[in-house]
Amino acid sequence: MSIKDVAQRAGVSWKTVSNVVHDRPVVRPDTRQRVLAAIEELGYVPNLAARDLRGGPTRTLSLVVPELSNPYFARLAERMQAAARERDHSVSVEVSLGSAAVERMHVLGQVPRPVDAVIISPAALSAADLVARRSGPRVVLLGERIPAAENVVHVAIDNIASAADVVRHLVDAGRSRLLFLGAERTPPSTGADRTVGLRAAIRFAGLDADPRLLRPVEHWNREGGRDAALAALDEGLEIDAVVAANDLLGIGALEALRSRGISVPEEVAVVGWDDIPEAAFAVPPLSTVAPDVDALVQAALDAALAPEGDGGGAGCPAPEVVVPHRLLVRGSSAAS
Amino acid sequence: MSIKDVAQRAGVSWKTVSNVVHDRPVVRPDTRQRVLAAIEELGYVPNLAARDLRGGPTRTLSLVVPELSNPYFARLAERMQAAARERDHSVSVEVSLGSAAVERMHVLGQVPRPVDAVIISPAALSAADLVARRSGPRVVLLGERIPAAENVVHVAIDNIASAADVVRHLVDAGRSRLLFLGAERTPPSTGADRTVGLRAAIRFAGLDADPRLLRPVEHWNREGGRDAALAALDEGLEIDAVVAANDLLGIGALEALRSRGISVPEEVAVVGWDDIPEAAFAVPPLSTVAPDVDALVQAALDAALAPEGDGGGAGCPAPEVVVPHRLLVRGSSAAS
Repeated sequence: MSIKDVAQRAGVSWKTVSNVVHDRPVVRPDTRQRVLAAIEELGYVPNLAARDLRGGPTRTLSLVVPELSNPYFARLAERMQAAARERDHSVSVEVSLGSAAVERMHVLGQVPRPVDAVIISPAALSAADLVARRSGPRVVLLGERIPAAENVVHVAIDNIASAADVVRHLVDAGRSRLLFLGAERTPPSTGADRTVGLRAAIRFAGLDADPRLLRPVEHWNREGGRDAALAALDEGLEIDAVVAANDLLGIGALEALRSRGISVPEEVAVVGWDDIPEAAFAVPPLSTVAPDVDALVQAALDAALAPEGDGGGAGCPAPEVVVPHRLLVRGSSAAS
Repeated sequence: MSIKDVAQRAGVSWKTVSNVVHDRPVVRPDTRQRVLAAIEELGYVPNLAARDLRGGPTRTLSLVVPELSNPYFARLAERMQAAARERDHSVSVEVSLGSAAVERMHVLGQVPRPVDAVIISPAALSAADLVARRSGPRVVLLGERIPAAENVVHVAIDNIASAADVVRHLVDAGRSRLLFLGAERTPPSTGADRTVGLRAAIRFAGLDADPRLLRPVEHWNREGGRDAALAALDEGLEIDAVVAANDLLGIGALEALRSRGISVPEEVAVVGWDDIPEAAFAVPPLSTVAPDVDALVQAALDAALAPEGDGGGAGCPAPEVVVPHRLLVRGSSAAS
């Protein structure tokens, strides 16, 4: 039983049968009906995996994210699938839960079902993992950068500039003691870039650069933000603003301030990053750095689907694609 | 270049090479190293799609959800992937965005890469789509039920009972005029089941069953909940509780009440469904019906991976699996 038997029965070319089977929108409805009827009559089971075996493009991408419980990644996954569908590709969403083994498996292509490219927001992957690659799918890094990654495109907002924008906004509103939640020392990482940008801007503004104000947080979620903010308050640190490395940390900080009767924004302003949908419904609504998610998604797909050989050969440094961001000022940081 | 060439070079059996290539944990580390070295020397590209072609199990499932921007589905996807990995399966997460065509494509198996089973939370799929199926992957329905679906397992909480639990809690707290956001008339659906349970419990309690208190909402998100609650308030409906068919609607209702200066829970109590992580951080923290998500995930995987022939043959009605729920009472509905 082959595609040719179906074609003969339906009185169409095998190419038309293939178009129907792969759900390509080029087939007229009545022809499509005829082909589907022939498929049913003959009990034909289309061998949809065949093109993988031929080594041709699978028209499938993986998106590997650390978690979907962060609404930022959930929205990213949703937009990526919709945008890929418009380019006639499908995206399989994989959650690494921060496991280096899972991330490595994907970038090395050691997965049951090969893909054309892996778009990954790495949480644990090391430079060594990427350097050791000799084959495997094309890799696009989202957000987190990894050094020494040859032939790997990195797509992100300008984290240093956006941190400086946040400080500028707070300084203009009269704030001077900024607590930063999500500080990181080890570059390159999103947290480290935001820390660097924040420190530079604070220095430039001539503000207090008390190192106790830069607080690492293990889990960038609501609980992590709440606990880190409470710890800072319990240490008696005087602050008039919280800069949170993501919105979940910021929402946790709002909860901590509320539980201590500290009014936002009157006494302490709060700003985050990501513009997750929840931010606009926080109490008060959370100011945030909004990445241009559509630009991010399109840039990642451009890099994933670029023709072979595009973007420099082996040994070329990783190209950087910077997507726009803007600071959305809401109630949590209105001028006091 | 075949797996046998690699086996010969490494001095192992082809079965061992296969185990390395498929990342099965049965290979000793030094043997694994030797095989990987042989693979690199020979430039062998493992043909991982071969088992699809043989028509054998792919050890891959699809999880089709309407959206990932609802944190309920995002968490479900994350837990499903982690739980499937423990059973040595992978789960590809697909977002339908409510498209009947996308949902149909998956349950009919008209996708580029076949899977063993499709676990789907349908938004637009009709009974006709399932009845028309002659082949295709096994289908498990999550949450939304579809009638007349033969050989399809349905996994969900008891929506009627949980609605009655919510009414009981509110009546015990002295509430009598309950606004329901997310009402639906067309069974079977999650919204309709919750509406039925709510109406029955209200009737039994002898409360006012004003039909204007049952409000459909097109999009079950924060904006939908806010706008529906504002509309009810603008019509002058007197209410002392809002029952929201999911937490996002409830968070929207909290925002609406806040914007009108109505205090929660003193004047109006609010309860939702799903226990999304955001609910505990709402202002005030949102009471909610918490499904046992782990039980839901395990039941769905049990149904998806059950041996052929399990659960009755063609023509059998869809088995129902009911997973536990509990009502978490938080600040939004504490006794007034």
